[in-house]
Amino acid sequence: MFFVYFKAIARMQRQRSIAYNKNPCASNPRRAATKIPSNRRYLFMNNCYSCTTCKSADKPLEGYIAELPMETSHHRVEGQSVKCGFGLQGVCCRLCSNGPCRITPEAPHGICGASADVIVARNFLRAVASGSGCYIHVIETTALNLKNTAQCGGEIKGPNALKHLCELFGIPEGDPHEQAAAVAQAVLDDLYKPDYEPMELTKKLAYAPRLKRWEELGILPGGAKSEVCSGVVKCSTNLNSDPVDMLLHCLKLGISTGVYGLMLTNLLNDVMLGEPEITKAPVGLNVIDSDYVNIMITGHQHSIFVHLQEKLRSEEVQNRAVAAGAKGIRLVGCTCVGQDLQLRGVHYEDIFSGHAGNNYTSEAVLATGAIDAVLSEFNCTLPGIEPICDSLQIKQICLDDVAKKKNAELKPFVFEDREQISEEIISEVLNAYKARRQCVPLNLFADHGNRDTVTGVSEVSLKKFLGGSWQPLIDLIVSGDIKGVAGVVGCSNLTAGGHDVLTVELTKELIARDIIVLTAGCSSGGLENCGLMTPDAAKLAGPKLRAVCESLGIPPVLNFGPCLAIGRLEMVATQLAEALKVDIPDLPLVLSAAQWLEEQALADGAFGLALGLPLHLGLPPFITGSSLVTQVLTEDMRELTGGQVIVNGDAKASADILERIIEDKRKTLNI
Amino acid sequence: MFFVYFKAIARMQRQRSIAYNKNPCASNPRRAATKIPSNRRYLFMNNCYSCTTCKSADKPLEGYIAELPMETSHHRVEGQSVKCGFGLQGVCCRLCSNGPCRITPEAPHGICGASADVIVARNFLRAVASGSGCYIHVIETTALNLKNTAQCGGEIKGPNALKHLCELFGIPEGDPHEQAAAVAQAVLDDLYKPDYEPMELTKKLAYAPRLKRWEELGILPGGAKSEVCSGVVKCSTNLNSDPVDMLLHCLKLGISTGVYGLMLTNLLNDVMLGEPEITKAPVGLNVIDSDYVNIMITGHQHSIFVHLQEKLRSEEVQNRAVAAGAKGIRLVGCTCVGQDLQLRGVHYEDIFSGHAGNNYTSEAVLATGAIDAVLSEFNCTLPGIEPICDSLQIKQICLDDVAKKKNAELKPFVFEDREQISEEIISEVLNAYKARRQCVPLNLFADHGNRDTVTGVSEVSLKKFLGGSWQPLIDLIVSGDIKGVAGVVGCSNLTAGGHDVLTVELTKELIARDIIVLTAGCSSGGLENCGLMTPDAAKLAGPKLRAVCESLGIPPVLNFGPCLAIGRLEMVATQLAEALKVDIPDLPLVLSAAQWLEEQALADGAFGLALGLPLHLGLPPFITGSSLVTQVLTEDMRELTGGQVIVNGDAKASADILERIIEDKRKTLNI
Repeated sequence: MFFVYFKAIARMQRQRSIAYNKNPCASNPRRAATKIPSNRRYLFMNNCYSCTTCKSADKPLEGYIAELPMETSHHRVEGQSVKCGFGLQGVCCRLCSNGPCRITPEAPHGICGASADVIVARNFLRAVASGSGCYIHVIETTALNLKNTAQCGGEIKGPNALKHLCELFGIPEGDPHEQAAAVAQAVLDDLYKPDYEPMELTKKLAYAPRLKRWEELGILPGGAKSEVCSGVVKCSTNLNSDPVDMLLHCLKLGISTGVYGLMLTNLLNDVMLGEPEITKAPVGLNVIDSDYVNIMITGHQHSIFVHLQEKLRSEEVQNRAVAAGAKGIRLVGCTCVGQDLQLRGVHYEDIFSGHAGNNYTSEAVLATGAIDAVLSEFNCTLPGIEPICDSLQIKQICLDDVAKKKNAELKPFVFEDREQISEEIISEVLNAYKARRQCVPLNLFADHGNRDTVTGVSEVSLKKFLGGSWQPLIDLIVSGDIKGVAGVVGCSNLTAGGHDVLTVELTKELIARDIIVLTAGCSSGGLENCGLMTPDAAKLAGPKLRAVCESLGIPPVLNFGPCLAIGRLEMVATQLAEALKVDIPDLPLVLSAAQWLEEQALADGAFGLALGLPLHLGLPPFITGSSLVTQVLTEDMRELTGGQVIVNGDAKASADILERIIEDKRKTLNI
Repeated sequence: MFFVYFKAIARMQRQRSIAYNKNPCASNPRRAATKIPSNRRYLFMNNCYSCTTCKSADKPLEGYIAELPMETSHHRVEGQSVKCGFGLQGVCCRLCSNGPCRITPEAPHGICGASADVIVARNFLRAVASGSGCYIHVIETTALNLKNTAQCGGEIKGPNALKHLCELFGIPEGDPHEQAAAVAQAVLDDLYKPDYEPMELTKKLAYAPRLKRWEELGILPGGAKSEVCSGVVKCSTNLNSDPVDMLLHCLKLGISTGVYGLMLTNLLNDVMLGEPEITKAPVGLNVIDSDYVNIMITGHQHSIFVHLQEKLRSEEVQNRAVAAGAKGIRLVGCTCVGQDLQLRGVHYEDIFSGHAGNNYTSEAVLATGAIDAVLSEFNCTLPGIEPICDSLQIKQICLDDVAKKKNAELKPFVFEDREQISEEIISEVLNAYKARRQCVPLNLFADHGNRDTVTGVSEVSLKKFLGGSWQPLIDLIVSGDIKGVAGVVGCSNLTAGGHDVLTVELTKELIARDIIVLTAGCSSGGLENCGLMTPDAAKLAGPKLRAVCESLGIPPVLNFGPCLAIGRLEMVATQLAEALKVDIPDLPLVLSAAQWLEEQALADGAFGLALGLPLHLGLPPFITGSSLVTQVLTEDMRELTGGQVIVNGDAKASADILERIIEDKRKTLNI
């Protein structure tokens, strides 16, 4: 059927992949079986291979990567260190064939007449719309999988989560599968509304004072997918040229992203995968045990793995792994879907070896040589893993075409075919194990990470931990034992000081000021590998927070898991505000996406702003070329929603600003 | 309700607009009433005001613009003439905070590992997805307006078009309003399908051999809006990194754009606005009669104007214009919606003064001083018109928020409120007329354009003109009197030789080779103002084509109107292929979007490629940095769909290539 496709195109791709596939064992297995010293650079992926890697907050990892015999993202930072000033400021436009146009004092408008304000706003809206589209894709997949699970009478692992959702949605008591199907359908129906019809669940899920403000501002979103389309259309060539209208659209997209992509995705996943429970777990490269067949998972769509996870738990599959020469077969967590599996780790202890690291740790995870396959279904699956997988004969399988990697096999997850898909994956992974372990050298790093990271924190498990009420936390905040709460969330990047550097330094600054930190996203991955989520990290906190942590046996940094769980933080914030009978912007609560990376982070951030939260970013989101956009986001937003963007790349200075905001909010609350 | 919004934001916008509003009469009406010589540069919009304007194929217009006392896009070309090589080649990536990354021989990958191929493919897909989103927005609005019109028993001006649609869709005979509602609903239902469900009408509208090929390639689109979302998601940070998958997605988007955004939008509009009929019409700045109240319309969503057009035809409204001191009130066409109104001109002769010009003529249209208001609802409404409108006190009203201009009034078209909206528009326009005509100087250009441009050509009216059959055209092609057919379509830009320069030169080259040219889009606007659509233009054609034109009394360039009508050309192509019992790529037919401008043009182009047509572009679509993408689009596409991209900025060389392709196709057909 795809004959023409293959004939014309696959040929080219094969030619291109040949260079990568020239690894030591492909042509001569005997030679390849010879152990190659890990510090010998046998693989030069391209001619810019740099010996200099960027800094990492995770010093052991930094050392490991610097010695790797292959190129990683960390190596490429230096070669890309000269940045385009127009791009950084967002004043470059390539929307039409008259361009690229770039704004300078001598040329303050593009050929069409677009000002710096218009160009910056368009670029920003496009990023937010695209980021929102990503999260909406994730919730759509999740809702579909829940609907299908319900309709075929599949297992409901989180009955409490389902009960909670039914209460929120107003679905009457009854058969749980029917209820689950109704929940999923309600979500899907909303996503597919036109943009001129407000989504119904937003009103059911949003905190009343926020809803009122959003209605006042006219930013209640219509159907989430249509809002993405409208957002993208608005910033196309010669369409919208009103920066303020575009920024308000960003807030609208933020709300649909936050309520659906973030909050609801977690809750639907809880139904299918089981609710998080607080526990301790191993993290870092040490979780990779080369005696097992290891499958690294990356992405954001955990529900795609439900069936595979259950299959892996079966004795039959484990026996096949043993027959292949391994102790068994396991999943190794990477990026957000790994973080989500860690969060629910208590349900999957037997087949989940632990979370190895975040996006910019993924290349190192593969470089250990002990990963036999990568299963990916969304970002953050770096293109940079492709040549590493090719060279180390790591099987790449993509389960969603939106995230298809070049040399990977595409095996789109179709619920009805799950049995066959899981079987094919398992067979192919076992084959990869058998083929590659004979010849690919190991380069393990068993000392990396730790084994007692506290995980499984959610809006439910945390409240349960506190005795079923937020009052103990409120009391600690009122007494000043906890000065305030900071959500240090979002991605990891390599340019805000280096890999996780600003995230870790800022977190240390915040906890030292008795501000408890809640994390979600790749920021969690960095912070946990750096040991800040072990109970022992309490000693890094200020005296009051330290005492709280030590008395409760908790770390000063609480691990909510994947970036999707930013929605959980926001549910905590809403519940705290409800308990205190104040609006969310009144809380002594700040957000920092210190090392935001992706377009999705900007959509998340727009939700933070819509909620009225101060949002710190370590790097500006390509907006500084517009005084108007900068002013609206960093100043006027306070009047609009209560939120504001704060851009600061210095950990101490950022912590000073965030602490001052928290202190001001405390004063206003008279605490 | 929008109190906060206004307080915080509108203030800033007011401040910013003050500078623009400093026109001669704003502060001192008496002084302003003094006639200011048209060649006195009283308005310096910004400090880069250049005395050099770009070339135009329309020499009289070039002279007029060069003498204008205000800045236009034509003035800004020079200041933006230094282009970024990375941007031009598409090898700049700003998807994440590690960027911008730029590909060089020394740095062949971005930090994440993305190659030039991946970066170029992502940028290209994003442009195509956004362009598709634009057209899908247009068809959605159109289908909604048809549905609402039908449901309230509104006028059906195109009963034949409705009958044709019902036949295509398989809707049984019955009450026309019920039929129209069913047609509209079928379109809306398809647009809102998920991306994993193919749209139903595609199969009903596509030509069978094409459908087969699309199925083989796996590029039959799912729900059009979801395909836009998936397209945008695919090219977000760290998602798809398979250039071929992304290019196939572009074809998929091309099909949904073409079948729905192009073909169906025309047909639905035909039902509401009346079918095109071949006639002669005035074009150019001469259509502007300063004795009338003049409303310039720009956009792509003609159905939004249905009610207003009928109101304007009423004696009551015309009398109000007379009472205000004018001879009446009329619409002046600009950009595609003007071109569409021209196409249907026979239905609106009394209130439509004619089509004045394309996108890059719009500033000159306003500069005449005789336009009292701009009604816009989509692109191509240049941001550059804003300061001109402000300075000349031209009322700006936007009827769709996706195209909100900064200082314009937003009055979103809501069908139920059409009576009130039309009344408000008419009142405000009359007020603007009364306020501004006292003080704003005129700068008319009565000699511009011509009065005998042939218009109203469609797939229906052309066939009717030929006697109800394509056979006469086929006979002329077979005999060689017409060597082949070229669709010279799409936009106008200012950089492929200047305003309409390549379009006009290429068209002259083609007709001189006995190749008949069909046009749709802003290319039509340029070609008609340059006189190529008057019967007299036959003398520019080669001897055989000239004889054909002169015997039939037609020009050698046939004017299908707006860019939406590219869909009409493609219906003609399909019907010719059907008549000849060949596939579309077998026809001696080529496309040229010589001066493509916008993202929409790239989505159109993707449809052309999916149809298997050779597609000429005067400027590369930011792809040359990737050898893979360039190879797929310019070479391998022939094997995939039969289509191919040809990039050439020289009119003669381009015509040589297109003529050779036509000759080859003729040989294969044995004619």
